[in-house]
Amino acid sequence: MKRASNPESQSFVVDHALRQTSRKRPDMRKMPIRKAFTLLEPGPVVLVTTRDGGKNNVMTISWTMVTDFTPRFAMTTGPWNHSYAALRKTRECVLSIPTVDLLDQVVGAGTCSGSDTDKFEKLGLTPVKAEKVRPPLIRECLANIECKVIDIIPKHNILILKAVAVHVDRSRREKRTLHAVGDGTFVADGRRLNRRKRMRSKIPDGV
Amino acid sequence: MKRASNPESQSFVVDHALRQTSRKRPDMRKMPIRKAFTLLEPGPVVLVTTRDGGKNNVMTISWTMVTDFTPRFAMTTGPWNHSYAALRKTRECVLSIPTVDLLDQVVGAGTCSGSDTDKFEKLGLTPVKAEKVRPPLIRECLANIECKVIDIIPKHNILILKAVAVHVDRSRREKRTLHAVGDGTFVADGRRLNRRKRMRSKIPDGV
Repeated sequence: MKRASNPESQSFVVDHALRQTSRKRPDMRKMPIRKAFTLLEPGPVVLVTTRDGGKNNVMTISWTMVTDFTPRFAMTTGPWNHSYAALRKTRECVLSIPTVDLLDQVVGAGTCSGSDTDKFEKLGLTPVKAEKVRPPLIRECLANIECKVIDIIPKHNILILKAVAVHVDRSRREKRTLHAVGDGTFVADGRRLNRRKRMRSKIPDGV
Repeated sequence: MKRASNPESQSFVVDHALRQTSRKRPDMRKMPIRKAFTLLEPGPVVLVTTRDGGKNNVMTISWTMVTDFTPRFAMTTGPWNHSYAALRKTRECVLSIPTVDLLDQVVGAGTCSGSDTDKFEKLGLTPVKAEKVRPPLIRECLANIECKVIDIIPKHNILILKAVAVHVDRSRREKRTLHAVGDGTFVADGRRLNRRKRMRSKIPDGV
């Protein structure tokens, strides 16, 4: 297998296969539900999995927002996404959090359609059975949040999600998430700055 | 003026004053409205200014989401924030985007209340007259998005905002924004990764 010299070429499946053989086996552990919002609050790009008619699908989304610590999340999507029909019908999804090494999977999942493509196979992503919902977790991702769709606001194309189980891969060394700018560029996480003491009054119990 | 030795101490006003004297004068330029979503899509923490009864206020918010390229944004807030009454009444705000050098202002604005504090004065932030709304821009921030509140979804504490003018400080060298984790830590922007060619089909015209 050769690496493409052009970093913009369609080489992501090959690159991914190379990476996977050298990566340790994931060690997915449950995370307390009350901490799930800390996975989405920084605003990372997410992969959203759905399952309809026995078929898995995955799409890339940046338009998510925490709306409550319980935790509840808002997500903007609509008929322009193939996954929307499955979300409306099954009322379940998984929000998977990719890291910088999965950038090309993120771009790949965002630029082809589940209507004519098995994206898991094309992108070399591995579906793993979830605990409380039918859509799969993604084995390669840092974290997976199993969600139920608890409300839909058609006027604004907003879905309200409630997390029902959360899994984090404790074996990963790469934890930097990605932030889409929307112009085709992405920003990786940089330095972490600690203000826990000053923020104490605003941090929910147990977080 | 001495610097505090403890980085968690309440020294942000002093630090800020020191920084301001050495920073160049801002060069705020208009940004085309169609590009405004690229300021919020990466998920940065924002400062939200309001103005009610002739009094400016500012709060720190992480819970925002792009909902449309026009651009429209969703923001979660409610009666627990002092600014909520002004937002409901005046239906206007400015979303200001701070950078890493403003971390202590971000923490400060998030841990005191406009009910008993003039936060602009306390934090050394400079209000600047906006073009189309009454709440002020913040001179020290990288960007300011003037917004109208076009809808409120009380059931989920979500406000829908429409951008009406956008300003970006072109003189700034520091452009890294901050991402709140929600546990009292923040992540600064790191490396930027370019996938514009592959993403072309998903980038709106002129972005």
